[in-house]
Amino acid sequence: MVKKVLKFGGTSVGTIARIQHVANIIKKEHISGNKVIAIVSAMAGKTNELLKYSNEISNEFNKRELDVLLSSGEQVTCALLSGALIELNILAKSWLNWQIPILTEGDFSNARIVNMNIEKINKYLEAKGVAIIPGFQGISKNGDITTIGRGGSDATAVAVAKIFNADTCEIYTDVDGVYSTDPNKIPVAKKIDKISYDEMLELSSLGAKVMQPSAVQTAMMYDIPLEVKSTFTERKGTKIFNQENIDYTKSVTGVAYSKDDAKITVIGVEDRPGIAANIFEPLSKAQINVDMVIQNISSDQKTTDITFTVKRDDISKTMQILRKKSEINYKDIIYNDRVSKVSIVGAGMVSTPGVTYKMFRALSDENINILAISTSEIKLSVIIEENNTVNAIKKLHTIFDLD
Amino acid sequence: MVKKVLKFGGTSVGTIARIQHVANIIKKEHISGNKVIAIVSAMAGKTNELLKYSNEISNEFNKRELDVLLSSGEQVTCALLSGALIELNILAKSWLNWQIPILTEGDFSNARIVNMNIEKINKYLEAKGVAIIPGFQGISKNGDITTIGRGGSDATAVAVAKIFNADTCEIYTDVDGVYSTDPNKIPVAKKIDKISYDEMLELSSLGAKVMQPSAVQTAMMYDIPLEVKSTFTERKGTKIFNQENIDYTKSVTGVAYSKDDAKITVIGVEDRPGIAANIFEPLSKAQINVDMVIQNISSDQKTTDITFTVKRDDISKTMQILRKKSEINYKDIIYNDRVSKVSIVGAGMVSTPGVTYKMFRALSDENINILAISTSEIKLSVIIEENNTVNAIKKLHTIFDLD
Repeated sequence: MVKKVLKFGGTSVGTIARIQHVANIIKKEHISGNKVIAIVSAMAGKTNELLKYSNEISNEFNKRELDVLLSSGEQVTCALLSGALIELNILAKSWLNWQIPILTEGDFSNARIVNMNIEKINKYLEAKGVAIIPGFQGISKNGDITTIGRGGSDATAVAVAKIFNADTCEIYTDVDGVYSTDPNKIPVAKKIDKISYDEMLELSSLGAKVMQPSAVQTAMMYDIPLEVKSTFTERKGTKIFNQENIDYTKSVTGVAYSKDDAKITVIGVEDRPGIAANIFEPLSKAQINVDMVIQNISSDQKTTDITFTVKRDDISKTMQILRKKSEINYKDIIYNDRVSKVSIVGAGMVSTPGVTYKMFRALSDENINILAISTSEIKLSVIIEENNTVNAIKKLHTIFDLD
Repeated sequence: MVKKVLKFGGTSVGTIARIQHVANIIKKEHISGNKVIAIVSAMAGKTNELLKYSNEISNEFNKRELDVLLSSGEQVTCALLSGALIELNILAKSWLNWQIPILTEGDFSNARIVNMNIEKINKYLEAKGVAIIPGFQGISKNGDITTIGRGGSDATAVAVAKIFNADTCEIYTDVDGVYSTDPNKIPVAKKIDKISYDEMLELSSLGAKVMQPSAVQTAMMYDIPLEVKSTFTERKGTKIFNQENIDYTKSVTGVAYSKDDAKITVIGVEDRPGIAANIFEPLSKAQINVDMVIQNISSDQKTTDITFTVKRDDISKTMQILRKKSEINYKDIIYNDRVSKVSIVGAGMVSTPGVTYKMFRALSDENINILAISTSEIKLSVIIEENNTVNAIKKLHTIFDLD
């Protein structure tokens, strides 16, 4: 008998028929003797419907009340799923954020789970009950409802798995796992059977939207085995482990990309300490997220060029700030807002020589110009012209034996 | 400065524009110095939407989970209304059932409010905050969400008014008060300015759906002055008081009717003690609500006829039960499922002689046959053929000077 946390996302519970289907998945786990805690999202579309209401009232709708509003979505799913299980003759019960309680810290809309009372639910599991818990929410120490950010049901699932010391945490979703690249763009994309937390993090932060990155991070910190699988097929999903438990036969696990990037180069800035800080401090204050930063050694030893990327939506705000700042002396600023970032990710990269060279050669073979490069231990990213994106992904997918 | 409980029904908060309108009504009360507690229903249609979901899963959806499900509707309204008030620069806050808490006793779907913690909210009112409370719900002593029956927001409003010792309890709705009869059927129907609790109770139990009867009853018990008024006009509403505070210039206050009645006569039953109980006990066990009961003295001293009315929907179930019961000896059972009940209501009736005669004469003048009669201190009801309903109401409305 194992203790399982099963999380069902918005599309998995998007209709009554789907909720009944989820009840059957849980029933199967339950009758095979497992203790089940299910975490549920709001029915697909419901959170947006509620958000639309609040936006009609104000674009700066009060954050405390927004959390009261949005948390109702998961409450509805909890009740419906519990009712559907009871209809299948399974003992089940919804446990709302304040009934457990799930304690959080931090701001409204952006809290994080710090603790939960496990006693009552553990007793209920012992009595062969299935506990249904709303994702994405908790209560503060003042007794206010707090939400933990969109997609926060993943974070709830991992926190519950950790606090209840569960054996596994299974993320049921509308895709059947993590792919070597975007299967919608590259039909030869392959489902990955096993992946490390780090790789998963790089892939998801690079645009593979299977799981919320901060939830993966928590799972990594506490070594909670995850599995991403489809609610709608019986196929095996992708298991996410600690790196040591994975045998790497391939140097590269996946190819990720992010769209909507823009590249900015500040030309001819003074090459002295503090310049980079002068450039990026005002951007950070304006909530602009800077991704890659490249600074070359200057040719004349006095000035240098600094290149960085931001999201395309932020480009005009960024240019405005840079042009206004009088502390920065520069010759020129140029930008290109039609670029994308393509990355190869793999925990096996470190131990495989020549991966970097192989990547650059492959892109050059396709006549794709590399505009900037950035590397980490398990990732190698390049900025290229946006219209080369699909070509680059296809080529890299092939040469690293992922097809 | 007075303390006011304002209750807004489902149509009053049915859209975002209406919620903003309600926020403005509250703002007006607030800036004129009143302490305001607002009780809100779910947005019109939402409760039915949720009920449809649960019915898709089961016609006997688990009652605990049904209460979890349905209570989310008022939570949404609470958050939206609080947000709308804050947007108008009014300090406001939603207080959910468990945050106050509102303590209930009794079954799921059918609980009643027994107490509330008033300290925190009173402190908040002192600090010039507006408290927004969800109607229709509370929590049991086990910490489960419980609802208090449909239309229960009225009951919440009266309970809050009582427990918080409010000066008034104003029921905002989509009609502008209580009418002398159904204004949709009888255009000369007049709004009543003042009415006693008893009269209101008789009118509402007879089909005038302005307020939930049990809420009126509670208000009567604790002498809480009510006012029913329109959310959408600035017209004065109907005040509901203790009888002593009303000057009766008219013997009859209103004419009510109920449709969908059926009349059953059991002919030739033995005239001995216990017979009535034998007939009505199995009906009560089958949840069939028996309304009027008439038994005449028997002509032959041995047998008698018993006539009673039930809702039309219950007629086949009722007939089935009566025919099956072997303990009852009778000659025949006849029924008429096309009847309606028309009543005149007025606290002034007792002190005005001839009201009864006047009613019967008026109906006879219209060639309307009376099938059964029942009276109370402030009410006189007759059962007539359904197709005579409008005629009867019009005639009675006129002869009792209500036009």
